[in-house]
Amino acid sequence: MGHRHTSTDAVTATDERRDVARVGIVGAGQLARMTVQAAIGLAVPIRLLADRATDSAALVSPDVRLGAPDDPAALAALAAGCDVVTFDHELVDAEILARLEAAGHTVRPGAGVVALVQDKRRQRAALAAAGCPNPAWQALDGADPERDLVAFGEAHGWPVVAKAARGGYDGRGVWVLGDPDAARALLAGPIGAGTPLMAEAFVPIAREIAVVVARRPGGEVVAYPAVETVQVDGICRELRIPAPLSPSLVVEAERLALSVAEAIGVVGLLAVELFVTHGDAAGEGGEDGGRLVVNELASRPHNSGHWTIEGARTSQFAQHLRAVLDWPLGPTAPTAPAVVTVNVLGAAGASGDPAARVGAALAVPGVQVHLYGKAARPGRKLGHVTALGDDPDEVADRARRAAAVLAGE
Amino acid sequence: MGHRHTSTDAVTATDERRDVARVGIVGAGQLARMTVQAAIGLAVPIRLLADRATDSAALVSPDVRLGAPDDPAALAALAAGCDVVTFDHELVDAEILARLEAAGHTVRPGAGVVALVQDKRRQRAALAAAGCPNPAWQALDGADPERDLVAFGEAHGWPVVAKAARGGYDGRGVWVLGDPDAARALLAGPIGAGTPLMAEAFVPIAREIAVVVARRPGGEVVAYPAVETVQVDGICRELRIPAPLSPSLVVEAERLALSVAEAIGVVGLLAVELFVTHGDAAGEGGEDGGRLVVNELASRPHNSGHWTIEGARTSQFAQHLRAVLDWPLGPTAPTAPAVVTVNVLGAAGASGDPAARVGAALAVPGVQVHLYGKAARPGRKLGHVTALGDDPDEVADRARRAAAVLAGE
Repeated sequence: MGHRHTSTDAVTATDERRDVARVGIVGAGQLARMTVQAAIGLAVPIRLLADRATDSAALVSPDVRLGAPDDPAALAALAAGCDVVTFDHELVDAEILARLEAAGHTVRPGAGVVALVQDKRRQRAALAAAGCPNPAWQALDGADPERDLVAFGEAHGWPVVAKAARGGYDGRGVWVLGDPDAARALLAGPIGAGTPLMAEAFVPIAREIAVVVARRPGGEVVAYPAVETVQVDGICRELRIPAPLSPSLVVEAERLALSVAEAIGVVGLLAVELFVTHGDAAGEGGEDGGRLVVNELASRPHNSGHWTIEGARTSQFAQHLRAVLDWPLGPTAPTAPAVVTVNVLGAAGASGDPAARVGAALAVPGVQVHLYGKAARPGRKLGHVTALGDDPDEVADRARRAAAVLAGE
Repeated sequence: MGHRHTSTDAVTATDERRDVARVGIVGAGQLARMTVQAAIGLAVPIRLLADRATDSAALVSPDVRLGAPDDPAALAALAAGCDVVTFDHELVDAEILARLEAAGHTVRPGAGVVALVQDKRRQRAALAAAGCPNPAWQALDGADPERDLVAFGEAHGWPVVAKAARGGYDGRGVWVLGDPDAARALLAGPIGAGTPLMAEAFVPIAREIAVVVARRPGGEVVAYPAVETVQVDGICRELRIPAPLSPSLVVEAERLALSVAEAIGVVGLLAVELFVTHGDAAGEGGEDGGRLVVNELASRPHNSGHWTIEGARTSQFAQHLRAVLDWPLGPTAPTAPAVVTVNVLGAAGASGDPAARVGAALAVPGVQVHLYGKAARPGRKLGHVTALGDDPDEVADRARRAAAVLAGE
């Protein structure tokens, strides 16, 4: 039971459509899952490179190849069978991608953008070159990282933020160090021994926002409205649209995101996460009393764009496909005055499959449920819920109630 | 290349989720395809019974069984592996379904509703019992159908509409007979010999509309707004929302559709197609000068509901799943003041795969493209395009332009 059928018919069906571009996706998490869903309407054939047949996107896809994202042979086979290669995550080897590009394959975003985005130090350098606001920062790659980190703290004030330059996500790989002793302890431990690190000045955060932009190879670029990303313990819990910001900060955030996309030449989606700082006593900064500082970049569909599936005129997943296929981009306007998306995170004591709770969640009026086909584990992103309406608080209340049911809280 | 993978992992992945209801769909056309798409977000596992691996929905589904919809063994196997069986079309044997129900399987809509809906004479009888407006009609199943048909025309006036009681669609199986000679010619030919027929009085049609309703087993029922279905040669070309009707006719149409759904006890979606008649000289009828007459019923997602994917707060495909799974139903309100859906029909001389024209179609601003993965043939429904906005004519213009590009016109 439950097998996927293999037949001569299926082979013919796939191969006869090679006048239509096939998109290969490296990775099969929830971002790929929702891209697969969007591809159905556009009749874009998708082939996944999945670690496991039980990966989120693999569960809903008819065309899955099993293989590791850093296996050169698996990537070469994916590229050979597809017209465009794109990504569910950035945990890939940019050198392998560069070799695929050199061999004539189309990789979007390109190897150069992937290399940049997967290294937070290179992100900072690119942002600075594009004139975007970074915090003070420094790579800790000298002969004596401990001395450099402590000196950075003395120069810019404590606390200092130490970050793994590569591989962090959802709050992992970020350490807030209150004093020189904490800095020394971090670098004396296993992290200091094995991880390329960087230091950043601590930014007093009033709120966090994100802007998702899409860019085609020829340069056409569009921005979605800025969203507030409500974070708890480094994990995004909620998206609120519109972000509660002054119009001038919204415009500035969108301008910054567009300028980064152009500066690095991304193709596909780029999510730009930003901090809005607390205003200081002297009233420095914008009319909110705060300034924008770029946090980090991701060159793919992003959690901060999940609201767009129902909340914008073009979903980020369809938009990503349009961008990497060099098709005209779609409108980004919201479909309602207020949109709230709440992530479904595995509750501490929850058991069972969250999919068994969808019916109960839908008892909350007017919510849109998206589950990722993942087994519950505490803190794991299992899905999200989006609600639309006129009043942001009423909308948030509905989305939260449905998400709590799904999480098994 | 292009094979679907089969692995022990995949089997485990499917089977470990049996605490979640699996839905089996008989048939794998575009309605099943769009249901499969909607099921991804709801994490509803879908298993298709497809005639061919190249069927529209089979192309995008990981769980496909090949078999004929009237093969008792294939249906029994589908029912055995699924918690609910539902339908992409009504070309099934209701007696087989009744046996599955008797064996304890859940079939939604049930065998009784399927038997009713697949026979236009039984539809008329059920509509009359529910107090819904039929045209004058008569089954032609007596000893002398020719005499009965001519007598019907003499009694109700020519032209008369003869219909195949079963199996017609998209204008097939309907004949408008201008006089007794035409009636005799029809019955003397091959159709008269082999097809159960019925006669209906000709209705002078001002426009055609449809109302899609959804009903749960316990009785909860919701109606989508009435849509105008613009027909050319018996095939639906466009949907316009709101339908250009007086408020009283809209209310009456929705009331009729809800009462039919309750009267026949449908579970899942029911599409009720209605004629709005020309008003007569005496001003009889509603404030438009017209009256409503039910045309026919379909107990499944329906072409007249395709606008709901982006145009309503709950798509008809998600709604059908919610109804057959006995989950709370979703809101049916439109997402914009004007919604127009235009079907993509294969053009007379068009060649190539319409999927190769998606990029060109998306150059029309703000259109949503849905292709069904079907090869182009003249007149074949290959997909649809939906546009949203404030002005119905401007919205229709965009949807038509994109549909024309996709059709290869």
